[in-house]
Amino acid sequence: MAQSQVAIIGTGLIGTSIGLNLMARKERKYIVVGADRDRGAARTAKKLGALDKEVGSIEEAVGGAGLVILAVPVMGARRILQDAARYVQPGTVVTDTCSTKADIMRWAEEFLPAGVHFVGGHPMAGKEKSGPEAAAVDLFREATWAMTPSPRADQGAVQVVQGLIESVGAIPLYIDPGEHDQYAAAMSHVPLLISVALFRMARDSQAWDDLALLAGPGFRDLTRLASGDPAMARDIVSTNREAIVHWLRRFRDELDTVAKAVEVGAEPVNDLLTSTQLDRDTFILNPPLRRRIEKTSAPSAQDAIGHMFVGGMYDRLKQMTATNGKGAGAAQTRDSDRELRRKLGIEDDDGQ
Amino acid sequence: MAQSQVAIIGTGLIGTSIGLNLMARKERKYIVVGADRDRGAARTAKKLGALDKEVGSIEEAVGGAGLVILAVPVMGARRILQDAARYVQPGTVVTDTCSTKADIMRWAEEFLPAGVHFVGGHPMAGKEKSGPEAAAVDLFREATWAMTPSPRADQGAVQVVQGLIESVGAIPLYIDPGEHDQYAAAMSHVPLLISVALFRMARDSQAWDDLALLAGPGFRDLTRLASGDPAMARDIVSTNREAIVHWLRRFRDELDTVAKAVEVGAEPVNDLLTSTQLDRDTFILNPPLRRRIEKTSAPSAQDAIGHMFVGGMYDRLKQMTATNGKGAGAAQTRDSDRELRRKLGIEDDDGQ
Repeated sequence: MAQSQVAIIGTGLIGTSIGLNLMARKERKYIVVGADRDRGAARTAKKLGALDKEVGSIEEAVGGAGLVILAVPVMGARRILQDAARYVQPGTVVTDTCSTKADIMRWAEEFLPAGVHFVGGHPMAGKEKSGPEAAAVDLFREATWAMTPSPRADQGAVQVVQGLIESVGAIPLYIDPGEHDQYAAAMSHVPLLISVALFRMARDSQAWDDLALLAGPGFRDLTRLASGDPAMARDIVSTNREAIVHWLRRFRDELDTVAKAVEVGAEPVNDLLTSTQLDRDTFILNPPLRRRIEKTSAPSAQDAIGHMFVGGMYDRLKQMTATNGKGAGAAQTRDSDRELRRKLGIEDDDGQ
Repeated sequence: MAQSQVAIIGTGLIGTSIGLNLMARKERKYIVVGADRDRGAARTAKKLGALDKEVGSIEEAVGGAGLVILAVPVMGARRILQDAARYVQPGTVVTDTCSTKADIMRWAEEFLPAGVHFVGGHPMAGKEKSGPEAAAVDLFREATWAMTPSPRADQGAVQVVQGLIESVGAIPLYIDPGEHDQYAAAMSHVPLLISVALFRMARDSQAWDDLALLAGPGFRDLTRLASGDPAMARDIVSTNREAIVHWLRRFRDELDTVAKAVEVGAEPVNDLLTSTQLDRDTFILNPPLRRRIEKTSAPSAQDAIGHMFVGGMYDRLKQMTATNGKGAGAAQTRDSDRELRRKLGIEDDDGQ
């Protein structure tokens, strides 16, 4: 084929924001094709300049693509993997942006034909609104983007995805899929549920009309996640229930500690908040990702996506593949399940 | 005196942001004097252009002032009211920016001499960082600013404070102090405690170093309030414990509902989140304050602060005072305690 094709399946906030980045690249030698079950969303993405072309079927999108990006809720990604498996060409790199990683890694293994390289991904980015209209070229700037390469993905494929991530301004983080899901439950899924519970607490009150008058930036920030896509949340729960239940219990324990301090008196509250403020300020001033990145031994992308897209895609991929056999990706550190559970205190909980 | 004097006691985020606004006003015929227990903070506020003058004592600040603004945590405001009572001149308007209102209204009544007009206030504004360096001229833009005039404050004094609020771009909301504290517990104080509990949940985990790598904007937004001033939180708890305990229990009930849905399955989660998303989007798109303002019968400020500051302060105040005897302020609607408790379902809880 004359031009490389990048396919974006799902043109919501994330897919359209990726498209805007890909289209903004100078001297690109690829076209960006998008598809969405809601064709109106795909047409909007095209109108916004995030796509060269909008197509109506998975076959058209992935059939000629060298890179396929699945930007849909995780259960949708499962169906698309099954469907796409029939059309995707050998050598194609497939990645995703789903909120959980363990299940999708299994499905990719199960459904995709040999020679197709799956590299899981999850950008830790978002905003109040969803849909293509909310997309922004700087959505991923400085965001962590978790990467879970399949053991079957070759080095070149991993570099292509890392290059994509770096080209949108995000910071790649290699991580084991199971570990990702445990940590995402704490840092993303449980915060979402807290946000929902807080909004409902106020909204369900008979005094809501008056309460709402006093809503300030704090209430708005804390309930922001409750405006997220319910389908995404549903799929997160479907694929990560055990970890979510664990971290919900942890959160309730902490809330009990705080409530106890409130009941005991002002000084315990002061002590609790002073140490929390100190810890959080340290976290904000010295983000751990920077530290990790400095000592990372992850494969260098050498602007792989730039090479790939400026030159001919398959040639480059072949070249990169030749340098390094296969299975070069994979998590930087892989704890055994037991070790992970120990770290998270899951066994401790059971034992007490 | 030749010039009116506005005194800002407490030059943290809020006091300094008010100062920046007062100093930015053209043709002003007043000077802005600031004091802070931490003289370094007051000097910083002056350096930032939020004050004409920094002074070292309450006496110097309030002795010659026509308007006194207390921008400190609520227990600090109590001490300052006691102290200032000895120096403040009859006719002076005193306001505050404290997070709770019932106690400070009682203290103002108790400590301030007759002829001094206290009009309570609480801007629903804030940001991640505290201290004068974090101040911004647009901090209050579009923010709700609760107003709780003392029954002893005259119409002119109420207009001065409403004029101040409008001049910084905020939206005044007249409210009963007890009602304010109940609602602020739900919309501000409990969100703060949730923020603290969520941050501690992650930070106390043995996996924190890894968890932190996955922190995205959601986690940062939900834990933002945990970086707030611990002294402010301590004083909030000291002066609003009962309401906080009530709303914490309400929140835990909602969290249980959400947790139950997670355990039952994906569809209940989907249903819960779909209705919550709809309600929150409605709330964001159609903020209730706008609706209330349209039908408000609150006294019109007629740019009272502009008149006051451009003309001679005491003359104007006298003039305004003459038009309307006294006690004109006060909440727009005052529910009895019983009615308020019924509305909040406090009695329901007790009865079940």
